[in-house]
Amino acid sequence: MTFANVGTLQTHPGRAEDLVVILTDSSADLGAHGCLQYDVGISADDRDTVVVIERWESAEAHASSLGLPAVQDAIRQAMPLLTGQMGGHRFEVLGSPLSGVST
Amino acid sequence: MTFANVGTLQTHPGRAEDLVVILTDSSADLGAHGCLQYDVGISADDRDTVVVIERWESAEAHASSLGLPAVQDAIRQAMPLLTGQMGGHRFEVLGSPLSGVST
Repeated sequence: MTFANVGTLQTHPGRAEDLVVILTDSSADLGAHGCLQYDVGISADDRDTVVVIERWESAEAHASSLGLPAVQDAIRQAMPLLTGQMGGHRFEVLGSPLSGVST
Repeated sequence: MTFANVGTLQTHPGRAEDLVVILTDSSADLGAHGCLQYDVGISADDRDTVVVIERWESAEAHASSLGLPAVQDAIRQAMPLLTGQMGGHRFEVLGSPLSGVST
């Protein structure tokens, strides 16, 4: 079942764009390991919070991706920018009203 | 620019699945009005909270969709199920690490 993970990452003041650069660094690894979507942006409500929308082939694919060298490297680069305040929502995609969309 | 909207909707105890049925009712209208993605699921952390991930061609497309008959009808059906506690995150999609993905 498709697994969705929404994450919010608060950065130190003014560092959100730097984090976006790290998180959008092209990586063939993610797709090869079951990543279906990985969209990055800055919250419209808090310009120091980066929001990530991920979809994966399964929760397991997402969990094992955290061990990928590219992901570990991104985490290492990102840590100094982060305040530690994080949040998000995880769920199995149950459906979509968009006709013809299989989830 | 692609606009992303993540929404969380708390339901009265045990009513999340009923809300999922309403929100996943097939609608050709959404796609015709710029909806690129509309995924629905139940939070892994709170089984009485439904999470929605939407992407739209623009923030304007999303805003004007709220006036669509199908959306108004879904809101009317959903209201009795909701506690009123809602949340979410809105952002312009700035990029993706998935190679070959245009956002």
